[in-house]
Amino acid sequence: MAYEEVITSVMSSDHASVVSMNLFVALLCACIIIGHLLEKNPWLNESITALLIGLCTGVFILLNTGGRSSHIFVFSEDLFFIYLLPPIIFNAGFRVKKKQFFRNFMTIILFGVVGTLISFAVISLGAIHLFQKLDLGSLKIGDYLAIGAIFSATDSVCTLQVLNQDETPLLYSLVFGEGVVNDATSVVLLKAIQNFDLSHIDFATASELLANFLYLFIASTVLGILVGLLSAYIIKNLYFGKLIRHCTNREVALMILMAYLSYMLAELFALSAILTMFFCGIVMSHYTWHNVTESSRVTTKHAFATLSFIAEIFIFLYVGMDALDIEKWRFVSQSPGKSVGISSVLLGLILVGRAAFVFPLSFLSNLLQKSPHVKIDMKQQVTIWWSGLMRGAVSIALAYNQFTRLGYSESRENAIMITSTISVVLFSTVVFGMITKPLVRLLLPSSKHIISIPSPPSTPKTLTEPLLGNGHHDSGPNNGDSVNGPSPNRLRILLNMTNRGVHHYWRKFDDSVMRPVFGGRGFVPYVPGSPLEPSLPQWRSITSPTAEENL
Amino acid sequence: MAYEEVITSVMSSDHASVVSMNLFVALLCACIIIGHLLEKNPWLNESITALLIGLCTGVFILLNTGGRSSHIFVFSEDLFFIYLLPPIIFNAGFRVKKKQFFRNFMTIILFGVVGTLISFAVISLGAIHLFQKLDLGSLKIGDYLAIGAIFSATDSVCTLQVLNQDETPLLYSLVFGEGVVNDATSVVLLKAIQNFDLSHIDFATASELLANFLYLFIASTVLGILVGLLSAYIIKNLYFGKLIRHCTNREVALMILMAYLSYMLAELFALSAILTMFFCGIVMSHYTWHNVTESSRVTTKHAFATLSFIAEIFIFLYVGMDALDIEKWRFVSQSPGKSVGISSVLLGLILVGRAAFVFPLSFLSNLLQKSPHVKIDMKQQVTIWWSGLMRGAVSIALAYNQFTRLGYSESRENAIMITSTISVVLFSTVVFGMITKPLVRLLLPSSKHIISIPSPPSTPKTLTEPLLGNGHHDSGPNNGDSVNGPSPNRLRILLNMTNRGVHHYWRKFDDSVMRPVFGGRGFVPYVPGSPLEPSLPQWRSITSPTAEENL
Repeated sequence: MAYEEVITSVMSSDHASVVSMNLFVALLCACIIIGHLLEKNPWLNESITALLIGLCTGVFILLNTGGRSSHIFVFSEDLFFIYLLPPIIFNAGFRVKKKQFFRNFMTIILFGVVGTLISFAVISLGAIHLFQKLDLGSLKIGDYLAIGAIFSATDSVCTLQVLNQDETPLLYSLVFGEGVVNDATSVVLLKAIQNFDLSHIDFATASELLANFLYLFIASTVLGILVGLLSAYIIKNLYFGKLIRHCTNREVALMILMAYLSYMLAELFALSAILTMFFCGIVMSHYTWHNVTESSRVTTKHAFATLSFIAEIFIFLYVGMDALDIEKWRFVSQSPGKSVGISSVLLGLILVGRAAFVFPLSFLSNLLQKSPHVKIDMKQQVTIWWSGLMRGAVSIALAYNQFTRLGYSESRENAIMITSTISVVLFSTVVFGMITKPLVRLLLPSSKHIISIPSPPSTPKTLTEPLLGNGHHDSGPNNGDSVNGPSPNRLRILLNMTNRGVHHYWRKFDDSVMRPVFGGRGFVPYVPGSPLEPSLPQWRSITSPTAEENL
Repeated sequence: MAYEEVITSVMSSDHASVVSMNLFVALLCACIIIGHLLEKNPWLNESITALLIGLCTGVFILLNTGGRSSHIFVFSEDLFFIYLLPPIIFNAGFRVKKKQFFRNFMTIILFGVVGTLISFAVISLGAIHLFQKLDLGSLKIGDYLAIGAIFSATDSVCTLQVLNQDETPLLYSLVFGEGVVNDATSVVLLKAIQNFDLSHIDFATASELLANFLYLFIASTVLGILVGLLSAYIIKNLYFGKLIRHCTNREVALMILMAYLSYMLAELFALSAILTMFFCGIVMSHYTWHNVTESSRVTTKHAFATLSFIAEIFIFLYVGMDALDIEKWRFVSQSPGKSVGISSVLLGLILVGRAAFVFPLSFLSNLLQKSPHVKIDMKQQVTIWWSGLMRGAVSIALAYNQFTRLGYSESRENAIMITSTISVVLFSTVVFGMITKPLVRLLLPSSKHIISIPSPPSTPKTLTEPLLGNGHHDSGPNNGDSVNGPSPNRLRILLNMTNRGVHHYWRKFDDSVMRPVFGGRGFVPYVPGSPLEPSLPQWRSITSPTAEENL
């Protein structure tokens, strides 16, 4: 079992693994420091840096061990899905801009679910047709469908590092939201594919597969929301009218444990833990986070972000080091042309598969939207298309899951699929990723000036961010970037839109039913030691002396 | 290998272990909530609550499984030493009151090292003489020495929960400091004992053992200090004059990773990771912590405390659940009288062994101290004596290490030693622990009034703590309890003492050599985004608007 291997190699106390751990932790520190020093570089970012450092270390180890091994640990999907992905996903939910997310909810679901399904169909069908010409041997129909799911999992980290949540809120929320929903969709899709006997696909199987997919999707979401609400309810009622010394520790501990509990419960009910954690994160940031003390807010906000940050770097470093594994490339060296061919075909299918849904669905979304402010113009469509071309650790983890299930790349086809996945991930992350920063600046140059100039505090924002970013503004722990406050311009847009549809009724329901029970901004009763957060003034920095007066 | 068992039972994805994990996480949440509700109870505290909840769950599982099993996981010393102890020890170092700690450094070392050695000698000799009358069979000389080391590891958590760092600073720092040094000493001692062939003890072996002990002690300390200084140096120089968006994540990540690195390096060099982490924590809170942004300070302070808090509750819950393991008690049921006898003998030896060094060493310490303010009076001596009578998870972990090394309690003697250790831990934690709160109130009633009254802000302290506790006072991230500021009374004491001895020269050296290089309070250059902390005024709340003016 690949899992025990990792555990033993990671944690058994023999000398070699202690050396490995030291090296790996030191490399993580190096990635952070070098990533920080390269902050201003127009091409690189933290992910690419970590990937390149991982590759260099791989080469170094390869040379030092005389070509025997290139990596410290064996890549394990369990390590990835149990330890690395959950903090990233939870943090994503925790700091999503809820207003934007829910306003664009339908579009995000359209892109994230329907779009992923389209991309899945295009890549699967394309692979079935094109791979046969490459004479790849004994891949089954289930394998082709799995390839579709594996290469539909996008990695939008690079794009999100470039986009600015304040300058292009619509675009950011679309790319971000789609990224998370897309991850969950591909994982659930692969799970559904593996659960079914796909030797003969008919309408019944297909609809059963769809029903299974929908059940997983909805049940996971509901579970996440329930656990999040439970945490809000407990913390709200526990601290009412009490003076506690160590309450920050207790609150933070409860939030961490409940988040983990949502993950474990999803595992227990065989649901999608990713979706559950994501929605648990959203609910916690909307209710629970407002019920705790000021220091707990700062702590949870940054602690979750830091864990997610470490996990991200860990993954890219890991993928970089794992890429050079000699074992895997042995099969490929016998037919290098074929491998290059497969990787190129896959890259082509990714480009086409994504175009096949971004442009039509954007058109559809524009038709449904009445307000011109939420229409997606062509430049934005190209940005969305580009932002989902990178493939990352989720693809690799899923590929391992599909193609090494019965052992370590036991057949030639499986070995080639693994190396092709690694090639696609490396190529797309490094090449596509490097183009992202200049491309976004080329496509969206105006946004920087149009929105930045009318809101005066945006220049000193970066200066005050570490201070003001403490979470004392209204929209929750999301990155401290609504610090600008509602500029007159955006306020108008906001007022234009608040009367629309679902979001309006949700707000009403939230204010009258949910918040009185579960707390949340402006609905937490006066608790000494937990500074009251008034809903007006809309945002208030932590440095405001009124925080003291409230006591 | 017991280790792999745990890993498999903790993390393999089969259904039973997922159920166990869910139950365990839910129990942890329950412990926090119930511990919170029982805050005002004069007898109970969080540790005892967790222990009792663990016992109840054990009984419940025992009844439900028809007496087959009482616990969810197998107790593993690796889980304990790799995951649970490090955060507790690091946090202890991170929030130790450095001024008090270093002022009383000699006394703490006297109690923690010399005292533990005396206690070790008394318990070992006592066990050799008294156990023979109980006819325990084939325990070797190494086993008796190990028993001495195992039962010299105190657990002062209960006492520290009752003592107040502001009211009785001397007592607190002595009990706290001794507790940490004592843990490290017993672990190092057992390590040294197990490394040597003890079939014939002569002067050469004994002095070699001592040399080994001293080497481990000093090398571990130096390593911890070096890693701590490295982290301070990196963070100080990296952020100079730069404007960074995500620097909080980077800083917090670097601090966590460097702390972990110190642990791994100690493992690499076969040193005592506990001591290394403790001193790394001290150095980080003295230098590194002052070099990071405000939000990083709040985050690290509370995140480390929360991790330590969760680990502590985890341990007590675990010990409680593990106590009822049927397997272990099978041998005991054949001779219940003998087991009770051994436990009683051990409890007696603990009482005597601790008295044997607390009173003489206090007398010695009083002789050496000139200032009347740092003399330890008889009531304080009794408190110190009592505070070290509880035995906790370290004892259990060490007992497992010694007596199940070759397998699962393979011999009758070993099984009896394990159950006796559990009995001693349960009895001392619950019975001695419950008496602690009333006893401390009886012995030190005056302290509450003498020091509390002259310092006016101490009453609203609890109110403002969550705000002021954000770490903007001078003494580092230690619990937010120097918020009172230097009252005239204490200031005089302080001035009386600053001219004394080592501490004075250390301060001079620190100010002129260390801080300019490694940062620290008042020595961090002006970095936008990292609010400058002036050394005067001595403490400044985070709500002070000057934080904004500094920008």
